[in-house]
Amino acid sequence: MDTITPPVSLLKPMNIPEKIMMGPGPSNCSKRVLTALTNTSLSNFHAELFQVIDEVKDGIRYVFQTRNRTTMCISGSAHAAMEALLCNLLEEGERVLIAVNGIWAERAVEMATRYGADVRILEGPDDKPFPLADLKKAIEQHKPKCLFVTHGDSSSGLLQPLEELGRVCHENDCLLLVDAVASLCGVPFYMDKWEIDGVYTGSQKVLGAPPGITPISISDKALAAIRARKTKSKVFYWDLLLLGNYWGCYDEQKMYHHTVSSNLIFALREALAQIVEEGLDAQIQRRQECARALYRGLSEMGLEIFIKNPKHRLSTVTGIMIPEGVTWWKVSQYAMKNLEIQGGLGPTWEKAWRVGIMGECSTLQKVNYYLFAFRESLKATHPEYEFVELKHQNGYH
Amino acid sequence: MDTITPPVSLLKPMNIPEKIMMGPGPSNCSKRVLTALTNTSLSNFHAELFQVIDEVKDGIRYVFQTRNRTTMCISGSAHAAMEALLCNLLEEGERVLIAVNGIWAERAVEMATRYGADVRILEGPDDKPFPLADLKKAIEQHKPKCLFVTHGDSSSGLLQPLEELGRVCHENDCLLLVDAVASLCGVPFYMDKWEIDGVYTGSQKVLGAPPGITPISISDKALAAIRARKTKSKVFYWDLLLLGNYWGCYDEQKMYHHTVSSNLIFALREALAQIVEEGLDAQIQRRQECARALYRGLSEMGLEIFIKNPKHRLSTVTGIMIPEGVTWWKVSQYAMKNLEIQGGLGPTWEKAWRVGIMGECSTLQKVNYYLFAFRESLKATHPEYEFVELKHQNGYH
Repeated sequence: MDTITPPVSLLKPMNIPEKIMMGPGPSNCSKRVLTALTNTSLSNFHAELFQVIDEVKDGIRYVFQTRNRTTMCISGSAHAAMEALLCNLLEEGERVLIAVNGIWAERAVEMATRYGADVRILEGPDDKPFPLADLKKAIEQHKPKCLFVTHGDSSSGLLQPLEELGRVCHENDCLLLVDAVASLCGVPFYMDKWEIDGVYTGSQKVLGAPPGITPISISDKALAAIRARKTKSKVFYWDLLLLGNYWGCYDEQKMYHHTVSSNLIFALREALAQIVEEGLDAQIQRRQECARALYRGLSEMGLEIFIKNPKHRLSTVTGIMIPEGVTWWKVSQYAMKNLEIQGGLGPTWEKAWRVGIMGECSTLQKVNYYLFAFRESLKATHPEYEFVELKHQNGYH
Repeated sequence: MDTITPPVSLLKPMNIPEKIMMGPGPSNCSKRVLTALTNTSLSNFHAELFQVIDEVKDGIRYVFQTRNRTTMCISGSAHAAMEALLCNLLEEGERVLIAVNGIWAERAVEMATRYGADVRILEGPDDKPFPLADLKKAIEQHKPKCLFVTHGDSSSGLLQPLEELGRVCHENDCLLLVDAVASLCGVPFYMDKWEIDGVYTGSQKVLGAPPGITPISISDKALAAIRARKTKSKVFYWDLLLLGNYWGCYDEQKMYHHTVSSNLIFALREALAQIVEEGLDAQIQRRQECARALYRGLSEMGLEIFIKNPKHRLSTVTGIMIPEGVTWWKVSQYAMKNLEIQGGLGPTWEKAWRVGIMGECSTLQKVNYYLFAFRESLKATHPEYEFVELKHQNGYH
């Protein structure tokens, strides 16, 4: 058999454009975050890496608003963290209730099913949150070990209120697991106050760090449930007892687990530092102000928002309804070289575009740029389209 | 409950030293690779990302010397790829034979056991490879679905010859899975010619890319075995049918799977491009020349190598025996601020240091620097130590 010759495709220079990433993530990182990526890739037991790891843990606790000792990062995407949470907390045959009204909860169903859990589903509409009473009733009916809900669904732009839900879960001996991938730092989130037992978020979303590393935290209740397992969790890579040991969560001697991506940890550290410097409340207010400006601008162009009730909207992701007669991908393709105008996913597929107010894109200047480019792209690709201001679509105000 | 205040630890500037990383990985990346990390984090369906993904696939096929269509990256460390290979190819109750003579094979045992496989172990000494005849006998005895072997063990510096092993496996209807994390680009490796069915390598090792992304490839035989599974593989994140679809392996329409770390993909692309530009043979020869210089230098200092037989040594990782009366960590600690002199792991723990010739550290200049710094660190921490040249320890020559 002959040998494989050097591929010519790799002999050309790589050329990645500088795009404005205003889809539902990844968002743009700051120069400071990107520069942090270029530090020396340290080895697992270097003191300098452990110091940064401790700082990252402090930062994660701050953005989740928790004192949980079991706070760390999964070396993988947010999907990996979703799977880590489910496979640590569910043994074969154990029951989980999943509140499904978007693509992320569907993924949780798929994952929990693969691990052999007894999966119960509470279905809801794509554009309205689950009322607390419905969730309570389903918990009382199914008596699950865990309830899984999505806080902010980036496939629709829907916000699920979480206040009181933890209390209801705990009154029923159930753990509350939350996907906060698209919501964190865009809307208030209080892990401890709201009695949430497990949560993860996306680095490449609102936090403004690169993708590939995912903050996760679990309560002492959830930790006790993992320690009480009869079998080891299926996945060694995500075993939160072993990984938590490396991340220094348990006052034990640290052991080698796997080679973490120090470059991504450095970048995440800087993204968290920027949030700490500005303050969590200020970050959230800034994104909500941007969202209001976006709603106003869309309304002025006569464009509707996928989530009708302003109270149910996630400030970080907005679905813009595709008007009749408009071919969505032509608009996206027109802008694509410089700006991401992303299409829909799951409930919004071929129904809406999705715009993200995340990372470095959470400024009024960027929102105005998006509105300008969106209008231009729509006009250029659909000259016949008429912009008529919507009178009754209001935003937060 | 009160809120969590901003942590002061994140208000200080981060300061990561520029170390020379000559442990068994992560190694140093080139400036070009590090700069590639700072490109815009693109979204999963951007045309520019798909182009880079295709180029990365070309590069991986070249370094593995394969034409396999099922060639992609796992979004995680090499541990994740080990686990991906095992959980895709083994269903509950299926038999795997693992050749154990170092820490990586032990990890494979742990992982396969968690997935409920019928794990059979062939144990061997830490410092000698398995003879082909022994592997053949064990395959004939256990009749496993898969055999797992480590090509180059970074915990010992041992090289396992693989020629003929694939043929023996296939004569016994067994798939050959290989860990080439520490060996690839340091010693010859021919996936197709040697009939290997599954392999992965470490980005942060010899390839000289940052950690967090892992090249993996499987043969059409292995792909057929996955397609013939009765149950879905446990882990959605590593499902090679779904992930391979996103990586464009199967001539199907590409579907969203998870958010890949585009920044890491860009960096890996540049690391692969550097290998293509220099040529695989030239890269391997350069590392073998560096290894010979290292052996000579150590011999001149009177230091022995963990793997005695030069034919069994992995050019990319060398275990340096800790002389009697020497406290290994004092030497490591002395050098640590500027240079990584890493201790042992598994078979070499408290017996040897481990030096890596990987990534940007594979030059005679770096090897000489290491020898110089090692001598200085040993002398400074153990003034009584006497350097006496070893006469009969030869290297490759």
